[in-house]
Amino acid sequence: MRNDLILCGVGAMGQRIARLALARDYPIRAVVDRDPAKAGIALHELLDIPEPEQPVIITPDLNLALQGEKATVMHATGSFLTDVAPMLRDCLEKGHDVISIAEEMIYPMAADRKLASELDELARLHGARLLGTGVNPGFAMDVLLLALTVPCGQVGHLYARRCNDLSDFGATVLDSQGVGLTIQAFERAVAAGEVVGHVGFRQSICLMAAQLGWPVDRIEEHKVPIVTRVARSTPHVSVAPGEVAGCHHEAVAYCGDREVIRLEHPQQIRPELEGIETSDFARISGDQAIEMRISPEVGGGAGTAACAVNAIAYLPLARPGLVHLNELPLTAPRFAQSPLD
Amino acid sequence: MRNDLILCGVGAMGQRIARLALARDYPIRAVVDRDPAKAGIALHELLDIPEPEQPVIITPDLNLALQGEKATVMHATGSFLTDVAPMLRDCLEKGHDVISIAEEMIYPMAADRKLASELDELARLHGARLLGTGVNPGFAMDVLLLALTVPCGQVGHLYARRCNDLSDFGATVLDSQGVGLTIQAFERAVAAGEVVGHVGFRQSICLMAAQLGWPVDRIEEHKVPIVTRVARSTPHVSVAPGEVAGCHHEAVAYCGDREVIRLEHPQQIRPELEGIETSDFARISGDQAIEMRISPEVGGGAGTAACAVNAIAYLPLARPGLVHLNELPLTAPRFAQSPLD
Repeated sequence: MRNDLILCGVGAMGQRIARLALARDYPIRAVVDRDPAKAGIALHELLDIPEPEQPVIITPDLNLALQGEKATVMHATGSFLTDVAPMLRDCLEKGHDVISIAEEMIYPMAADRKLASELDELARLHGARLLGTGVNPGFAMDVLLLALTVPCGQVGHLYARRCNDLSDFGATVLDSQGVGLTIQAFERAVAAGEVVGHVGFRQSICLMAAQLGWPVDRIEEHKVPIVTRVARSTPHVSVAPGEVAGCHHEAVAYCGDREVIRLEHPQQIRPELEGIETSDFARISGDQAIEMRISPEVGGGAGTAACAVNAIAYLPLARPGLVHLNELPLTAPRFAQSPLD
Repeated sequence: MRNDLILCGVGAMGQRIARLALARDYPIRAVVDRDPAKAGIALHELLDIPEPEQPVIITPDLNLALQGEKATVMHATGSFLTDVAPMLRDCLEKGHDVISIAEEMIYPMAADRKLASELDELARLHGARLLGTGVNPGFAMDVLLLALTVPCGQVGHLYARRCNDLSDFGATVLDSQGVGLTIQAFERAVAAGEVVGHVGFRQSICLMAAQLGWPVDRIEEHKVPIVTRVARSTPHVSVAPGEVAGCHHEAVAYCGDREVIRLEHPQQIRPELEGIETSDFARISGDQAIEMRISPEVGGGAGTAACAVNAIAYLPLARPGLVHLNELPLTAPRFAQSPLD
């Protein structure tokens, strides 16, 4: 049954996916996680929820978890295509559909064309579908903008700015954005690849460009420190005035010399201390000028879990192979979002 | 060829559709309009554009226009299902796909279940597709809200408010909204069915409810006069303080006793004279609270023409029969919105 789920990865995001899938009554057949501390624990123990009739024990053994009839794998183990490809390959070879929240899976051709093509072929060969989804990339800076082009006769430029708050995150995320560094240390960390900023700009740009038929020739990315004027702190970090409270990461796409897409994503702790409201902003410029603002921004964590679980019902509508969000209806008719819950 | 177009109705909206379709290089095979003043005129004369190699003469004869291989009919002759059904029937019997901007065609089952079912069966029988589209209904108060539910795990209530400006419209539209009436005359005109307000609330509600699996039991509509405090005028009407500058029309949907959808659409002339900004506002209430504002609002005229022309490329992805917007991808991959135009 395609509605049977196999969870691959039950870290913070995988656990959100598990909770929502259970709330929607999807049967979870198996759970795999490579973390030795989770092996042998039951899923309900990890989630701290009542024991079900048939408890599922978390295993570190992927092949064991993938046994059985064709199901849908909910994949949440990493961001980068090269890191997650071996696991995806194993899933597809067993004929399982895969819904992944790996950022680069939104448009894997933009990360590694050869590897993405291999996965596409493997999926077709085994009658399986492979979809990447999430809030960003996957919604706030791409699919939502495409939705806004529906009433446009001609589009010349797309702009999006997502301003969010990192205050709830731990050391790993804060380090990846350079929070707490001096300006000089930030610049060095960017050069060394330690401050990665946002993962997925290339995916958002290539997804939109493919949908709009735009021949993007070049993408430029810049990472600039967000230097605070006031002291900002969270349970994990304290930042003094003049130090780095976050990373303003932007990507600009060109057709020839012409800028056609600009995406800006300032990520920082405690933005409200300098009067900054978090938001998703988008502007479509063409025969219509559409300016859209969502404030506060669409939640990244809850939203990504919802995108993944909502996809279970409508992914089977797609042909086997690598599937992109723009090729599917937004959601499945009659997906279970009862107003009476 | 499904890309060959037959235009049915070349009033103000049909002409917008014609211009955009020509800009996209869709071949227009035939044009039909029942207005005797247009019969015998060439389309390029009506549009005041250069003469093409093969001019198309506007005919009042529908059967003549529908001759030939299966094509796509762009239908823009009216709002109500019962009015447009005979023409749609003729198109479908010839096997033509139909894209209609009739408001009730967004979800015709909500207007007349028997008639909508007949059209569905007829379309299936002849291998044709029948789609209704437009900005409102069709986008601003339904599909756009559904897009905002993509990152939601649970949705409990939908709210939308579209505030627009009627100043550019002529007597027919202004009369349909009661502009220029006294409050007493407005109330009488509503009771007599002369002030119709917005056409399409039931369609927007039923489209969203179908997508979300919500069993809507009851829809209530109210039309309230927008009474101006200042003098407002357009080339077609002058309204004194204390008179009616427009119609605030709202619709509320219930599951049992619980309100689940509220749509408000205040339409008036010169809203800026009382400091009112036109906008599309939406709120999704559920596990996420998403508030979205587009200001000024998405253009109704240009937007509806674009929705219709954009659908040409992706309607063939649907199975034959009555098709709804929520069953299709948002747009076709690689639809022609070149940034280089």
